[in-house]
Amino acid sequence: MAHEPGAPVRVALLGCGVVGSSVARLLTEHADDLAARVGAPLELVGIAVRRPQRPRPDVPVDPSLFTADAEELVTRADVVVEVIGGIDPARGLILRAMEHGAGVVSANKALVAEDGPTLFEAAARNGVDLYYEAAVAGAIPILRPVRESLAGDRVRRVMGIVNGTTNFVLDKMDVSGAGFAETVEEAQALGYAEADPTADVEGFDAAAKAAILASLAFHTRVSSAHVHREGITEVSAADIRAARENDCVVKLLAICERVTASGSDAVSVRVHPAMVPRSHPLASVREAFNAVFVEAEAAGELMFYGRGAGGDPTASAVLGDLVAVARQRVSGGHGPGESAYADLPVVDLGQAVTRYHISLDVADRPGVLAQVAAVFAEQGVSIETVRQQAGPEDDGRARLIVVTHRATDAALSATVEDLAALESVDDVVSVMRVEGA
Amino acid sequence: MAHEPGAPVRVALLGCGVVGSSVARLLTEHADDLAARVGAPLELVGIAVRRPQRPRPDVPVDPSLFTADAEELVTRADVVVEVIGGIDPARGLILRAMEHGAGVVSANKALVAEDGPTLFEAAARNGVDLYYEAAVAGAIPILRPVRESLAGDRVRRVMGIVNGTTNFVLDKMDVSGAGFAETVEEAQALGYAEADPTADVEGFDAAAKAAILASLAFHTRVSSAHVHREGITEVSAADIRAARENDCVVKLLAICERVTASGSDAVSVRVHPAMVPRSHPLASVREAFNAVFVEAEAAGELMFYGRGAGGDPTASAVLGDLVAVARQRVSGGHGPGESAYADLPVVDLGQAVTRYHISLDVADRPGVLAQVAAVFAEQGVSIETVRQQAGPEDDGRARLIVVTHRATDAALSATVEDLAALESVDDVVSVMRVEGA
Repeated sequence: MAHEPGAPVRVALLGCGVVGSSVARLLTEHADDLAARVGAPLELVGIAVRRPQRPRPDVPVDPSLFTADAEELVTRADVVVEVIGGIDPARGLILRAMEHGAGVVSANKALVAEDGPTLFEAAARNGVDLYYEAAVAGAIPILRPVRESLAGDRVRRVMGIVNGTTNFVLDKMDVSGAGFAETVEEAQALGYAEADPTADVEGFDAAAKAAILASLAFHTRVSSAHVHREGITEVSAADIRAARENDCVVKLLAICERVTASGSDAVSVRVHPAMVPRSHPLASVREAFNAVFVEAEAAGELMFYGRGAGGDPTASAVLGDLVAVARQRVSGGHGPGESAYADLPVVDLGQAVTRYHISLDVADRPGVLAQVAAVFAEQGVSIETVRQQAGPEDDGRARLIVVTHRATDAALSATVEDLAALESVDDVVSVMRVEGA
Repeated sequence: MAHEPGAPVRVALLGCGVVGSSVARLLTEHADDLAARVGAPLELVGIAVRRPQRPRPDVPVDPSLFTADAEELVTRADVVVEVIGGIDPARGLILRAMEHGAGVVSANKALVAEDGPTLFEAAARNGVDLYYEAAVAGAIPILRPVRESLAGDRVRRVMGIVNGTTNFVLDKMDVSGAGFAETVEEAQALGYAEADPTADVEGFDAAAKAAILASLAFHTRVSSAHVHREGITEVSAADIRAARENDCVVKLLAICERVTASGSDAVSVRVHPAMVPRSHPLASVREAFNAVFVEAEAAGELMFYGRGAGGDPTASAVLGDLVAVARQRVSGGHGPGESAYADLPVVDLGQAVTRYHISLDVADRPGVLAQVAAVFAEQGVSIETVRQQAGPEDDGRARLIVVTHRATDAALSATVEDLAALESVDDVVSVMRVEGA
């Protein structure tokens, strides 16, 4: 619908937690700049919260703007900003807002990754914009570059560190040599991990972001349910040490790849810890920072780096989207809608092609290396390097460290199973994928 | 003007050099993808070149598309892609295209930086889009993120490595210890530097990009003429060595900062070589890669990294813009136009605030350090560290290495002048700004 010249753009905010408070504050502090960039003032018409009476001294707005009636609020806005998170009631409110003609800006990775198509179809049906830059990698502009800047290119692979908590934990483990459990406690004490860190450390958060990135990069539909997910709870101090000895760091990666399956184009989307060579740009992403590495056919290698979470960084991304949606509302026209024309199948993990780094404790006697090598050969997995270390004690044991060439995950995984069953192998000490080499 | 549903979007290409050939090839190879993303097929209606008869086997298009009559070609296109470069005839052709109602995609940094306002005004007057992502940092999406993703934030500083040739030369000098002249020869032999490398090594190319970045980041008008420019021709092996000893690398930086001058907001835009600590993300940008580091009030620190030049990478950026302009043509609406509402003055270099690293050869006798320190104090420049090294020979000389705190460039520059005039100072061996600390 046409916007009346000069009239303010009415903005409704759903949620006033860490991100919502930042959005409300920046809307107030930057009002003049935002008006100049949009072409009309942004008027905050309400903030939906569970307890509207609660004092919020850090949110510099008229207290009468707080309301518990989100259902009503969304019917009187031109743009609705949703920073509640979770599936319900966020989904219902977004759909209701669109039915009433409002554009929507959301930071809700879980919802977009689980049920994006429902939202995209509603946006198209109602002729409104739906933007969600803040859902992936916080402040880092990554969805707009993938969706718009690379629209003339063909993306081959997206490989990202998209969860700050797990990167913080893995980075600390690398620096301190400590184990997973105690490092998570430290991260909790410092505010980098939630009291219940499951969504982060089990990779659910990263998997939602991977689904969103894959959908945009490959113009197809990928939901969280399609993403193979492994968290970092099994990453041990021994794994980190093995990575160091291999001149690598361990990162939790979200990997979205264009692959060929049964002769046709397909996509592979997976989240798991992996060794990354220290010389790779992703290896230098420290602490709770995020970064997304993109390989495109014409553009080559790109990387986007910045803060992946936090109130102000996430609010920056939300406001960038808000300016776009509001500007389009004022000037006419729309941003790009969902682009899912490629409609590619998602292959399962077994078909993904990767490399493995495997540490084995074996009997230190002639013939063992030949036995081990035979197992790899039987599965058709080619060995890149094998290194033998004397065991920690003079007890007739040795450590074998094998790095493979690229093979399907199915073949690699079967190889590890067969190795574990070998009589001469005491222990499979560490198995990890190697990416970015 | 409204686009007829289903009708192709007519694209005219001006120029068919390295970038133009890639654009033509990708338009052909990716035709189906591009049509799906735009919502209508892109039809290449002509390529303007100086010699249309010349065989171009690497450009897979109908040879009859080549024409020498660019003036005529631009009148029969919906979108004109300009990859000729330089000021004229590019400017006249772009203006003519807009007058005939065509949107424009340009990779022309020199033209946008020198005379952007003329182009932006023509775009606004004719109601057409003007996009130029490829003008800065090749394939790296940087203009769209700064212009759109950060539209709700306030950018404090942009600091970029935006010239691949100079980064290649400085990186090689850092690795080999060789001097400037021989390293440029090596870069020329490898195709990383032009036969006449002036535009790159004297910083003209980077200055144009700095002007464009500053204009977008600060919503104001900055042209190349406003940019303080120093190239890398004076960077010596001794400077690189001094940087190494200071745990830094030397980079040619384009720096755009929001500053306060006489109590008001202003901008400082400068291009010069500087020492950057090895721990800074920009320090790890090797060879001919580009990267742009952005500090924004809410988003915090962001970095964008990738290939800054080359046919395919630049063509990727051009095609991303082409899809945007064509999509908007098909669906209605426009991208954001020029945003120069802030209208900030550009301060001269003397008012920029930075730090200096200074190496001096001095007489090795008591009292010299006090004399040197007095010169800094007189200019109000505070010293962060001073280190004394024994001279190379046992000849009564010593080397003093001073790193300052932040001060105005005017005060720092006056300090160096006074130091050079001291009787006890034999030689000012190296003076370099330190950034990113």
